[in-house]
Amino acid sequence: MFFASKVKADAPQKNPKKLGTVVIVGVGMIGGSVGCGLRAAGACNEVIGVERHPIKEAIGVGAVDRGLPLAEAVAKADVLVFSTPVGVMGALAEQAAPYLKPGAVVTDTGSVSGHVAERLQPIFGSRYVAGHPIAGKELHGVHAADPDLFQDKAVILSPDARSDQDAIDKVTALWHWLGAHTITMSARDHDRVFACVSHLPHLAAFALMGAVSAARTAELDPAAFAAGGLRDFTRVAASDPLMWRDICLTNKAALLEMLDLYGAQLGIVRRAIETGDGQALTDLFAHANTVRARMAQ
Amino acid sequence: MFFASKVKADAPQKNPKKLGTVVIVGVGMIGGSVGCGLRAAGACNEVIGVERHPIKEAIGVGAVDRGLPLAEAVAKADVLVFSTPVGVMGALAEQAAPYLKPGAVVTDTGSVSGHVAERLQPIFGSRYVAGHPIAGKELHGVHAADPDLFQDKAVILSPDARSDQDAIDKVTALWHWLGAHTITMSARDHDRVFACVSHLPHLAAFALMGAVSAARTAELDPAAFAAGGLRDFTRVAASDPLMWRDICLTNKAALLEMLDLYGAQLGIVRRAIETGDGQALTDLFAHANTVRARMAQ
Repeated sequence: MFFASKVKADAPQKNPKKLGTVVIVGVGMIGGSVGCGLRAAGACNEVIGVERHPIKEAIGVGAVDRGLPLAEAVAKADVLVFSTPVGVMGALAEQAAPYLKPGAVVTDTGSVSGHVAERLQPIFGSRYVAGHPIAGKELHGVHAADPDLFQDKAVILSPDARSDQDAIDKVTALWHWLGAHTITMSARDHDRVFACVSHLPHLAAFALMGAVSAARTAELDPAAFAAGGLRDFTRVAASDPLMWRDICLTNKAALLEMLDLYGAQLGIVRRAIETGDGQALTDLFAHANTVRARMAQ
Repeated sequence: MFFASKVKADAPQKNPKKLGTVVIVGVGMIGGSVGCGLRAAGACNEVIGVERHPIKEAIGVGAVDRGLPLAEAVAKADVLVFSTPVGVMGALAEQAAPYLKPGAVVTDTGSVSGHVAERLQPIFGSRYVAGHPIAGKELHGVHAADPDLFQDKAVILSPDARSDQDAIDKVTALWHWLGAHTITMSARDHDRVFACVSHLPHLAAFALMGAVSAARTAELDPAAFAAGGLRDFTRVAASDPLMWRDICLTNKAALLEMLDLYGAQLGIVRRAIETGDGQALTDLFAHANTVRARMAQ
């Protein structure tokens, strides 16, 4: 993998420090997997969950030891993890802040780090470190929680220049307990990278389904012949509309940049087809082969 | 599946008629699989291969009984199958035509039926029926031939108004011998459908690799973080550049239509992100979910 100077990658520590009491706000698939994994590893004294939904299910799958209302839970936290949808994290952080112990650290699992950091950094200051685990998300809800979800996966941490070193260390230890390795880059770089490798492909697949639908005539529906190429796009196009709305709204600048890069590439393909320029098409497709091979390494 | 009035679907016959001598021009992965499958099924007296490359390998994998030069092979054919790249079929058909027996039938396995039919129909007239098996193509060459490749797969036949019924019946029988079912539609409809469900997704994936490459800076390469969304596109982006150049050049009109439909959808997404129109994004993504679900049926 080519990382470059701006990025720092750390392998998991052998014996990370114990985490004390961990509070997870939003115990869905990701938050639940964090809880299950920490409890299974014996990483902490207790995992407390904060949930809109009844906490019984989260206890049942082993994601948390118990549930508490936000204020009571936060008051006990040594490590506070926000794992709700990105759109509601800011408001919950504001409600939580007055109850946080001195010395406690705060992190999150949101997929748009810049937006979350913009909201949480002013609230929690040097005690906050933005995080984004790169792990599968086709399933939703705490019943899909998996203690091994983060094993050998990457987690992007985006500490601020103002973040305390011990806050960075504690959040790093949390992910090492879960078997993940951490990669450090700025929130801005994070959002640009994931606009490119995750958000843009999702939009490309959503738009492709729209085009397939628009191509339907009264007499013939191409979707009935979904084959080869199209099938690879369908998993992505089944993703949750509300989650992707929030990602689009919160990672606007990077996504507009990537959509324009994509539009330019499609424009090159279109012109080559229109003018019958076989060499331009071959060059473009061969280049795609190369990029793909680089990614697969 | 929604097929509509223009399309006729046939389940495999229980006891298709024997095919006599089958000649396959171009014994690669597809042509070789046709040969292996027909020989394994006992569908014909003999399979003769015509190949630029030494025929030994095709004999070795059981794809043909023997090889002959084009003219000699064609003179023996009851069923003549062109399975070369689309770009060279026309020239080979012209060379073959003078040697064809009266009563022999001609078909092909090309993925752009309109272009092939335009070349082969004037040469073979009522004895020609265009065909396109919808089967996986990641592998190339006769060593990848598989007698079961077409089992339970669809084959699109595009006979002309001028095609003889017995030619249609013989070509249909060939695919039924291989365990495939046949679907009949016009070459024009075929090319529009596959521009939509196969060619456009390939171009979308190729262009996406181009965008990922263009997003690389001196300091950070997004491709190093290839995750989730992007991975689903990589298989498609690894496809053969020359094959896709030929498809682009031979299915121009339908592909330009599909690229424009796709561009319009991406434009809607871009505008919604730019103006922060969450409702438009949710609607578009939810519609994509629906189209996807319809395809999966």
